[in-house]
Amino acid sequence: MPQSYRAPLRDMQFVLKELARIDEVAKLPGFEEASDVADAILEEAAVFASEVLDPLNVSGDKEGCTWRDGEVTTPKGFKEAYRQFARAGWIGLPVPSEYGGQGLPQLMVGPTHEMWNAANVGFANAPGLNQNAIETLELTGSDEQKQRYIPKLVSGEWTGTMNLTEPQAGSDLAAVRTKATPEGDHYRISGSKIFITFGEHDLAANIVHLVLARLPDAPEGTKGISMFVVPKFLVNADGSLGERNDVHCASIEHKLGINGNPTCTMNYGEKSGGAIGYLVGQPHRGMEYMFIMMNAARYGVGVQSIGIADRAYQSALAFAKERVQGRDLKDLASRSAAPVTIVHHPDVRRMLMSMKAQIEAMRALAYVTAASLDHANRHPDEKVRAEHRAFIELMTPVVKGWSTDTAIEICSTALQVFGGMGYIEETGIAQQYRDVRITAIYEGTTGIQALDLVGRKLLRDMGKTAMRVIGEIKAFAATLESSSNADVRAIREQLLKGLDALVAASQSIGKSATSDLPASMACSVPYLKLWGIVAGGWQMARAAAIAEQKLAANDVEAEFYKTKLATARFYADHVLSQAAWLRHQIVEGSASVMTVTENEFDLDRKVMTPA
Amino acid sequence: MPQSYRAPLRDMQFVLKELARIDEVAKLPGFEEASDVADAILEEAAVFASEVLDPLNVSGDKEGCTWRDGEVTTPKGFKEAYRQFARAGWIGLPVPSEYGGQGLPQLMVGPTHEMWNAANVGFANAPGLNQNAIETLELTGSDEQKQRYIPKLVSGEWTGTMNLTEPQAGSDLAAVRTKATPEGDHYRISGSKIFITFGEHDLAANIVHLVLARLPDAPEGTKGISMFVVPKFLVNADGSLGERNDVHCASIEHKLGINGNPTCTMNYGEKSGGAIGYLVGQPHRGMEYMFIMMNAARYGVGVQSIGIADRAYQSALAFAKERVQGRDLKDLASRSAAPVTIVHHPDVRRMLMSMKAQIEAMRALAYVTAASLDHANRHPDEKVRAEHRAFIELMTPVVKGWSTDTAIEICSTALQVFGGMGYIEETGIAQQYRDVRITAIYEGTTGIQALDLVGRKLLRDMGKTAMRVIGEIKAFAATLESSSNADVRAIREQLLKGLDALVAASQSIGKSATSDLPASMACSVPYLKLWGIVAGGWQMARAAAIAEQKLAANDVEAEFYKTKLATARFYADHVLSQAAWLRHQIVEGSASVMTVTENEFDLDRKVMTPA
Repeated sequence: MPQSYRAPLRDMQFVLKELARIDEVAKLPGFEEASDVADAILEEAAVFASEVLDPLNVSGDKEGCTWRDGEVTTPKGFKEAYRQFARAGWIGLPVPSEYGGQGLPQLMVGPTHEMWNAANVGFANAPGLNQNAIETLELTGSDEQKQRYIPKLVSGEWTGTMNLTEPQAGSDLAAVRTKATPEGDHYRISGSKIFITFGEHDLAANIVHLVLARLPDAPEGTKGISMFVVPKFLVNADGSLGERNDVHCASIEHKLGINGNPTCTMNYGEKSGGAIGYLVGQPHRGMEYMFIMMNAARYGVGVQSIGIADRAYQSALAFAKERVQGRDLKDLASRSAAPVTIVHHPDVRRMLMSMKAQIEAMRALAYVTAASLDHANRHPDEKVRAEHRAFIELMTPVVKGWSTDTAIEICSTALQVFGGMGYIEETGIAQQYRDVRITAIYEGTTGIQALDLVGRKLLRDMGKTAMRVIGEIKAFAATLESSSNADVRAIREQLLKGLDALVAASQSIGKSATSDLPASMACSVPYLKLWGIVAGGWQMARAAAIAEQKLAANDVEAEFYKTKLATARFYADHVLSQAAWLRHQIVEGSASVMTVTENEFDLDRKVMTPA
Repeated sequence: MPQSYRAPLRDMQFVLKELARIDEVAKLPGFEEASDVADAILEEAAVFASEVLDPLNVSGDKEGCTWRDGEVTTPKGFKEAYRQFARAGWIGLPVPSEYGGQGLPQLMVGPTHEMWNAANVGFANAPGLNQNAIETLELTGSDEQKQRYIPKLVSGEWTGTMNLTEPQAGSDLAAVRTKATPEGDHYRISGSKIFITFGEHDLAANIVHLVLARLPDAPEGTKGISMFVVPKFLVNADGSLGERNDVHCASIEHKLGINGNPTCTMNYGEKSGGAIGYLVGQPHRGMEYMFIMMNAARYGVGVQSIGIADRAYQSALAFAKERVQGRDLKDLASRSAAPVTIVHHPDVRRMLMSMKAQIEAMRALAYVTAASLDHANRHPDEKVRAEHRAFIELMTPVVKGWSTDTAIEICSTALQVFGGMGYIEETGIAQQYRDVRITAIYEGTTGIQALDLVGRKLLRDMGKTAMRVIGEIKAFAATLESSSNADVRAIREQLLKGLDALVAASQSIGKSATSDLPASMACSVPYLKLWGIVAGGWQMARAAAIAEQKLAANDVEAEFYKTKLATARFYADHVLSQAAWLRHQIVEGSASVMTVTENEFDLDRKVMTPA
């Protein structure tokens, strides 16, 4: 039977307090109590994740969702779990109290979102979409729209969706064709959307679709896209549900994983002159608005992948401590030595350390980014707010792209620890391997994240933000110079090498961007990865420095801090040390990416030359 | 619909002729015609793979195998395909003609095995097991056993299996408990084996199980294991089938992939005093014999993974040339530029090149190793034979471990090229992602391969073979010094760096082996990977040198050789360039693998400290 989920509470608490500095967040207006309630929230969330969501993870995957005549049934237990989730107030965690939310910092979304997704990713996508829809409407909707939709999304009576993708417009939203025709105070929406998570389901009474479509006079491309809210059931003036709108689920996908949630093809206006929709914000600014939702969603997917990876790691660790196989290498000379659990074997230990170190680095970077969001939203000084905004913009594609790619590797490593048992579905780890694979794809593939990082974040401001952040990390590294701890010094050395690589890679990309844009973009993914491992390494180095201080002060949790230091050292030697390789790929290898032409790729499969 | 498989015939031919040097193999006694018939065999195999096996790949995965009352039904069409496969003589390809085989070199097993597995891995495991059983019996069986079993395994009337694993003895065969009790001219076998591929099925009239078990007087550990042949139906003196033996399939596994083949739990002697089995070779030497089979099987799994990876790459390439999405970066300035196929996008191109380059390197190393097997078997000079044997022993864990790990990455990259479509099972690429995952597990996980590489191949002869092979690669690199081609020079530079890393890593492991064995083994997997990328880089460098010559001589296939050179350059810049990272992990990072103790791994999940 699969291992049940236990939240990594101590590490979450460490990151919240020591790295993301919840005490600083608590100084922001409105967040005065955040620091005091943080522990209690973590504990409650952990219980909810383990007791309510986790027991439905395997059954949700096995049973999956079913479609019949446009209705979608979610797996057994999901409906009741959703009701409990909503009732406990988890959806509204970061939502202002005026809409019925708890008004907590975004920082708290990090660990809670991680727990929901670790416990049951198929389920967690539902409330995750509510949070994204709430945020988008809060920032772009009219007062009336906010009042109409947000409280119901917070209470969980309704759920939200994002409707972007069309068959011909996957990553390229400029190609969106869904039409919106004005009619009185509303619009008629017609067209088809695919890959809509929870587009139809039985969890809640109504579904609030946020839909990208084009007005009749819309310019071509992304500047002609508007955003509409299209409820499954129209909402009467008194807030009660009215007529069924003409938005229907035509089918659901048969997927590799995340079978707990339906992935829907949605048809708008197929049975009538169009589904009734309401314009959100200004015409033609839909992409801009959708990016608000998308950025939150991208961050959320990054954290989701960390949760799945941590669950996989946890299962692998438990298996490694239980599975007896082979003898300890130290006892090799003695043939009569008893067999040991596989956690004794160095290669298994290496796999466990590699998972542990990378998860801790990703978690730290993700939560630190969440704290930045709070400062960006609430800090009294606009200059500080702007700096945090720039940091978040730089880090969002990194948290999404780097975490998801790494999480996929981690789930594969976890499966490997199980050996043959890992390939058997009953063991459970194969589900994480299947589930996690979507995270590097939806809300923009890693390639799209890297394009965003290089195009919008590095090149657009001529590297200003990138160099500022690199400077900040360098300044921190300088503070480690005085350490006499060998681990800290080794970590610092790898961090400095990572920073050098990042500077060289950034400059190389910047230089070639003006002369050969395709070449400058050819290694955008290795560049994103370089940012990930260095920014993650920065957090691990910060953790190591804190650990060094705590150990010097004879902290009661010496074992915890000693482990943190050892984990950071492992990260430096085994993960951060790849910076030079990534730099080589970017600086020296970009040219060799584009030399083989489209047709030349087929020469290997050509008819053979005569003997 | 999934892309159908087209064998990479031109590249296979290139590797056979230019790198594995089939002309040299054809000088060995009995292989005189190998070179002349090679092209015809490749072409026929390609047709068979595409027309007979490929059409059953998706349906075999979907339908899977079913178990009922001990009988196993394979997916629709498998039985007829197996009959055709056998009739065409493919099982006996490398088997001496005295047993009804074609007597071709092992070298030809490389490309044919690759094609079968690319076309349908679930199916290909059946005849692959026949070949392994044939080889084992040929080398270790009595004359009577050879005459009794081999011709039927060659003709395909019967199939073979390997019965090693038991629940408590996965990678650790020392823990095998199945018993063999002498009774007249045979033995009574009782015990349970798990994970037996094609342990039971409906493809053939009889199944020849090779089973590891212990005699009553057997010493503990691996030195007390004997090998038995246990037929499903006993064989009468005239070769006809007799009584049903007491070996039964208790269940089949529900797996992540390779659903086309049943993975069986086999019970021996559950209904009687034991299944009737016959000792193969000498008592207590079963492990030694099984290693013959296992080494062939390990090599076979390496090639299998290359086949699956190539199929995935091929699908991704076809999709990239078909899928229209986004605009060419070169046309970014012009807003009216038409959308292009995604093969135009640099990141997609990088993914394709990364798959192509690694597949070609793995294929080259695998076929070169197969050629070495022929020289080891047949070269008139024992000194040459011994050198080839040592080379094969060194390369077997590398071909297995490196190819399978890389193939898993490649299938993930291929899925990524498909974006959201890749996550939908109907597209087909998810099957390769699921199927390929087993290859790094069965016939010994990558960790086991690495243990073999470091323990048996590097340390046992004090690095003699490793250093000889490194010397050979260095001598080859020296021949590139005079090249004025910038690509060849860049490749040479990375190859030399790779060799330096390999020397440093080998020495570091050798040194710590005497003082701290666990630490010396801690990075055995990165060490295996280093061998893989360097040995693969050696083959790519050889290919580049040949391409340079061909281009200088105005070869009619200039485009093919130009592409080969560009691919080798990509490999050097993006793959081989990671050598320094792997070296760092091994030399500097081995110590940090074992510092966190077993209990300390759980500190992250500890109850939190009070706020």
